[in-house]
Amino acid sequence: MSDVRLSARFLQFCYRYSAMLPLSVPPPECLQKRFVAPQRHMFGPGPSNVPLRILAAGAEPIIGHMHPEMFEIMSDIKSGIQYAFQTQNKVTLAVSGTGHAAMECALFNVLEPGEGFLAAVNGIWGERAADIAERIGARVNTIVTSAGGCFTNEDIDQALAKHKPVLFFLTHGESSTGVLHPLDGIGEICHKHNCLFLVDCVASMGGAPIYMDKQGIDILYSGSQKVLNAPPGTAPISFSERACQKVFNRKTKPVSFLLDMSWLANYWGCDGKLTRIYHHTGPVSNFYSLREGLAVLAEQGLENTWQRHREVAEYFHEGLENMGLKLFVKDKNIRLPTVTTIVAPAGYNWKEITSYIMKTHNLEISGGLGPSVGQVLRVGLMGCNSSKASVDMVLKALRDALKHCHKSKV
Amino acid sequence: MSDVRLSARFLQFCYRYSAMLPLSVPPPECLQKRFVAPQRHMFGPGPSNVPLRILAAGAEPIIGHMHPEMFEIMSDIKSGIQYAFQTQNKVTLAVSGTGHAAMECALFNVLEPGEGFLAAVNGIWGERAADIAERIGARVNTIVTSAGGCFTNEDIDQALAKHKPVLFFLTHGESSTGVLHPLDGIGEICHKHNCLFLVDCVASMGGAPIYMDKQGIDILYSGSQKVLNAPPGTAPISFSERACQKVFNRKTKPVSFLLDMSWLANYWGCDGKLTRIYHHTGPVSNFYSLREGLAVLAEQGLENTWQRHREVAEYFHEGLENMGLKLFVKDKNIRLPTVTTIVAPAGYNWKEITSYIMKTHNLEISGGLGPSVGQVLRVGLMGCNSSKASVDMVLKALRDALKHCHKSKV
Repeated sequence: MSDVRLSARFLQFCYRYSAMLPLSVPPPECLQKRFVAPQRHMFGPGPSNVPLRILAAGAEPIIGHMHPEMFEIMSDIKSGIQYAFQTQNKVTLAVSGTGHAAMECALFNVLEPGEGFLAAVNGIWGERAADIAERIGARVNTIVTSAGGCFTNEDIDQALAKHKPVLFFLTHGESSTGVLHPLDGIGEICHKHNCLFLVDCVASMGGAPIYMDKQGIDILYSGSQKVLNAPPGTAPISFSERACQKVFNRKTKPVSFLLDMSWLANYWGCDGKLTRIYHHTGPVSNFYSLREGLAVLAEQGLENTWQRHREVAEYFHEGLENMGLKLFVKDKNIRLPTVTTIVAPAGYNWKEITSYIMKTHNLEISGGLGPSVGQVLRVGLMGCNSSKASVDMVLKALRDALKHCHKSKV
Repeated sequence: MSDVRLSARFLQFCYRYSAMLPLSVPPPECLQKRFVAPQRHMFGPGPSNVPLRILAAGAEPIIGHMHPEMFEIMSDIKSGIQYAFQTQNKVTLAVSGTGHAAMECALFNVLEPGEGFLAAVNGIWGERAADIAERIGARVNTIVTSAGGCFTNEDIDQALAKHKPVLFFLTHGESSTGVLHPLDGIGEICHKHNCLFLVDCVASMGGAPIYMDKQGIDILYSGSQKVLNAPPGTAPISFSERACQKVFNRKTKPVSFLLDMSWLANYWGCDGKLTRIYHHTGPVSNFYSLREGLAVLAEQGLENTWQRHREVAEYFHEGLENMGLKLFVKDKNIRLPTVTTIVAPAGYNWKEITSYIMKTHNLEISGGLGPSVGQVLRVGLMGCNSSKASVDMVLKALRDALKHCHKSKV
């Protein structure tokens, strides 16, 4: 072999490895340990337990985010959401993210800088919507009620007349306070004021009646990890014809490319165009499990599911009152069937109670959130967890905790 | 029973069901069909195949997004990313979304309205970064090179001197053109111009050497569905001390709450604070599978993985040239080892080739994207798919396609 050839091969060798410097960060030892997740009763406000059939769906082999089979799955998901939301809206899809992503998707696409936004705040979600709308330069107003309360249609009518927003936000299932907000008539009031009606049903969808079309809701979104019992990571959303008029005729682009409905609607085959353009890589496995969660809902039937959640919640609330515990939401008619707020028992440290129950009963219940922090215990019984057997388990755990946790002497 | 009590019970009954109207949307029939995903060789530019061990990790039971075990998993993920990125950065975490979400996370957190942004465009990702930066009101400039080419450090130095941006974007692994862009020296040039250096390594991480700290990269992000072989839905990201100085001292809030690093850094325990505040519900199952993907990388070792990807790519490229096919990237030194771009064979319809291979060989390869549409075929061999056996499969399929697909008479 000539020197020239040798030297060329040597250079090639050098090139091949020249980019390799010594590593300054060694492989982490913590990753050598095999991870096994504990089995746990997920009775907090979410995520809820995921049944084996949905976990198994999520573990199906990966296919491409634009393969024909994937488009079929997305079409099934769309139909499932239309059923769960009771809507015929064409622009119905799942956002690649949790409820927060759907909230941002709604606000980013509807609101343009300087436009008016009114948020009904009766818990953390209204606050959050106001925060996000402010970030994108909307003119933000709020109406506020105490935690555990709700608004009358007159309150809303007056606030809309005063602030003249283009978008009104209301939380249907306020998981931070345990309130199920009435919806009837509000859509009409919004439309009278030339305002779109945006509703968060993350914690209520499947657990309490909602009729997107009949109730005049213009944008509705939810999450996968509550009544649908799928892992967190996808969020159903739907836009009415009226909302689409606004969204697809805006003057400025939404701040997010990822959540831009003109792209997303195409990716989901909602815009009537024949070809779909690559937008982002959808979370394939999460779409599998979301589809399965929606299939379970369709199998069991919306009305049965709503009724079961209500009956189980009433059975639970009765049991709590029989134990001498008080419900945070006084008015029975506005209690959220999926997430129950219990007044934190006097004299106890609520953290000690939730920790004791987790340690001793392998069962999650949680404390308050936002305006209800320190005031309540929250118990979520959603989807497959909505059963009298779950209630009995929670009541037993609470009874046990009240006996064993430290009670301060008053 | 008195009339009063009867009537009260009747009213209660009415209340209970009054909210239930007849459903206008019936349960969709399509959801009655059990879905089974096809097994398929995922040799496109991503998502790539997910090995059983990673699918199984993703199917572990759900725990809470703020349970101690979850924080441990997140801590493991952080260590795994620090290893994969070769960085000691404290602010290292996984965004709850795909690479696009990480791109938006980087741009949203670093740039304030009116600030200068320079994107190096040698494929679709630079274009996309420029699009997003424009949406949030940055002053955007680009330097552009032809598809398949790359920039010299002088090009970059001059453009930075001219445009004086606060942030410079470069794609390490341009999956749309098949270019692996050299990185050495660019960090120093950026810092000389008082500019932060942002690098997209979605398609290259694990497949080609990258040393975040040594190369002076200030923000680096990747994706879960390429070399890591996890399902799409999470995106590793890391911020240098210098980047943190900018991000945590901004005057305006980032447009997105969900991607706001002051919240995310706390959720991921990167801000040194003792308590973590609820921010959003992380995609629990995706974190399981991302952790497992990182564990595989740590087990196999970065250097071995880089070397395997290079050797397999060279074996592949040799095989292609032996078949008479041409590589789109002329310069061997800048060929991306993970995603190969092949000049679309003259006289064939590239769509017929990819369809034939999918139908006959159950194997995905794809066409071009952005500037390479119609010009190339793209083959991704990433993570577990980076093997000579996979190469042989692709070469066989290509040979077969060229024989059976329609060739126009010139």
